[in-house]
Order: sequence, then structure tokens, then C-alpha cells
Amino acid sequence: MRDGFHVALVLSLIVALTAGCGAEQPSRTTSGDAQPSREIRAVMERQAAAWNEGDIPGYMEGYARTDSLRFASGGSVLVGWEQTLERYEAAYPDTAAMGHLTFHDLDIWLLSDDAAVVFGRWELARSEPLGAVGGLFTLVFQRGAEGWRIVHDHTSARTTGS
Amino acid sequence: MRDGFHVALVLSLIVALTAGCGAEQPSRTTSGDAQPSREIRAVMERQAAAWNEGDIPGYMEGYARTDSLRFASGGSVLVGWEQTLERYEAAYPDTAAMGHLTFHDLDIWLLSDDAAVVFGRWELARSEPLGAVGGLFTLVFQRGAEGWRIVHDHTSARTTGS
Repeated sequence: MRDGFHVALVLSLIVALTAGCGAEQPSRTTSGDAQPSREIRAVMERQAAAWNEGDIPGYMEGYARTDSLRFASGGSVLVGWEQTLERYEAAYPDTAAMGHLTFHDLDIWLLSDDAAVVFGRWELARSEPLGAVGGLFTLVFQRGAEGWRIVHDHTSARTTGS
Repeated sequence: MRDGFHVALVLSLIVALTAGCGAEQPSRTTSGDAQPSREIRAVMERQAAAWNEGDIPGYMEGYARTDSLRFASGGSVLVGWEQTLERYEAAYPDTAAMGHLTFHDLDIWLLSDDAAVVFGRWELARSEPLGAVGGLFTLVFQRGAEGWRIVHDHTSARTTGS
């Protein structure tokens, strides 16, 4: 329940992710192939690459470096970039715990020129005894001086963990 | 994990909810007392009142009546207003199962003239043996011809259920 990260986008997934983006949400302001969507995907690809190299600070670059960053998972909320970094570092002390993370079924949904919601599924492949976990995420991205960054992350996990 | 609704706003909570709205997110485009926020609160109050009268179709009036409505909970996703209604009716066959639902700590966050994200906590008070459940929600509201309606609902529950 507290394994909430959405990372990855290994190269093999990019085609599938691009094809699936936004297709199921005809009533929304979805723009799967516009420049903002590409920039958001690039942020998430960099997060993925960092995570899968065991680089949690690099992964955290996808989040807005602000005290108002919010990370919600299960029934608990973290507020602040530093707090979120510390939580990740505590929960993932080594690359075995971090495993290999991938995104699926990304839906990038532009709500204004500088705000977007991204919904998708995350999967974390790990060796036993830790095992695989996965679930869903809803992210709010905002565009600031550094580009698009996550300002709100709500993650939920499958209860079975596999 | 699948008890994802966010309802209520009983009168006794309104003052607290209003006071807390948006206060912790200084970097965001939050407008806790503007007209759109009041309209969104009113939608959720009507949902709450309906839920607490055992009226699931009335509660569902807060959701956009569209096949692209998305309801994410735990590791599963429902798409469509009808499907979401059916899921609620199956999961909550009577008022004992529905209990009494309240919202807390609402953060209404306007992203454009016709899109908003609402983050908050839900609590469902129920008698034993069902017991209380609660958790967090991230909602995306959009304003259409009928006013503000939820188009995306991501819910997570505490794992302990109390």
C-alpha cells in the first residue's frame, strides 16, 4: 500500500504507452501527442531511468521541489519534497528493494496551459521474497520555471501485491 | 480497499472544511472561497446528503454522466457512469452497509476556468461487524452544461480499516 512510485517507461514500453494515451477519454481535454504531453512523458522517462539505476534523488527530480508537494498513498499523506525523498530512501534501501519499475496505460490529460493530470498503472518487478507490487496513480503536473513537475501524487496498490 | 466514496459534509463539518481549504498549498492555483469552489462544495454536499439518506443514484448525480467517467480504487479501474453506479449498488445493498460518510480536509484546487482537482479524506462510520473505513481521494471536476461534475475519482483506503 505504501509502494507508490511510478517510474520507468523502459524503451520497450514507449510504443504501447504512446498508442494507448488518451484514447478512452473522448470527453476530456486530452492531447496525447502535443508538445506538453511529450514533455511530461520525458519527465517520467527520466524518472524511470533514474529509478532503475537505483538513483532515488534522480527519480525525485520529477517532483516539484516545493514544501507543498503532496504524496498520498493508502490512508496517509506526505507533504514536502524533502519528506517524500526521505520516505523513498527509507522504504527502498537498496536496488533489490527498488526492483524494476514500469508504467502502463498512461492517460495524459491537459487541463490548462500549465496543468495536467496523468493517470496510469505502475508495476514494480522484484525478486522473491519481496515480490512484485503494482497499482494505480493519479498525478497532477504543473509547468513552472523548470518545466513540468509533479505537484500531487495519489497512489494506490493492489491488495494482493502480485 | 474498494470502499471509495467521498460524501457527506455534515453541517458540523462545514466550518472546519472551509477554514482548511487550500491553506497548505501556497504554490498552487487554489481559490478556497471563489464561486467555483463554492459550487464544487455544493455538489459534494448534495452527494453527502444523498448517500446518508441511502440514495445511491442521488449520490451519483455528482459524477459526470458519461461513459468516460473513471473510478480508480486500489489496483482496479471502472470506466463509465452506469458501471460505477452498478458497483456502488452491489457493494452497498442497504443503509447499514452505506453507513454515514463524511469528508475532511478538502483542498479544492482550480486548474482552469472549467477544471479542478479536489483532494481530501473520507470516513465511513458503520456499525459492527462492518466497522468504519476511510482513506483519501483525488477527484477531477470539470464544468459542463450541468455544472461541476466529477470525471475522475481515485480513491485509496487505510489498510487497517479503522
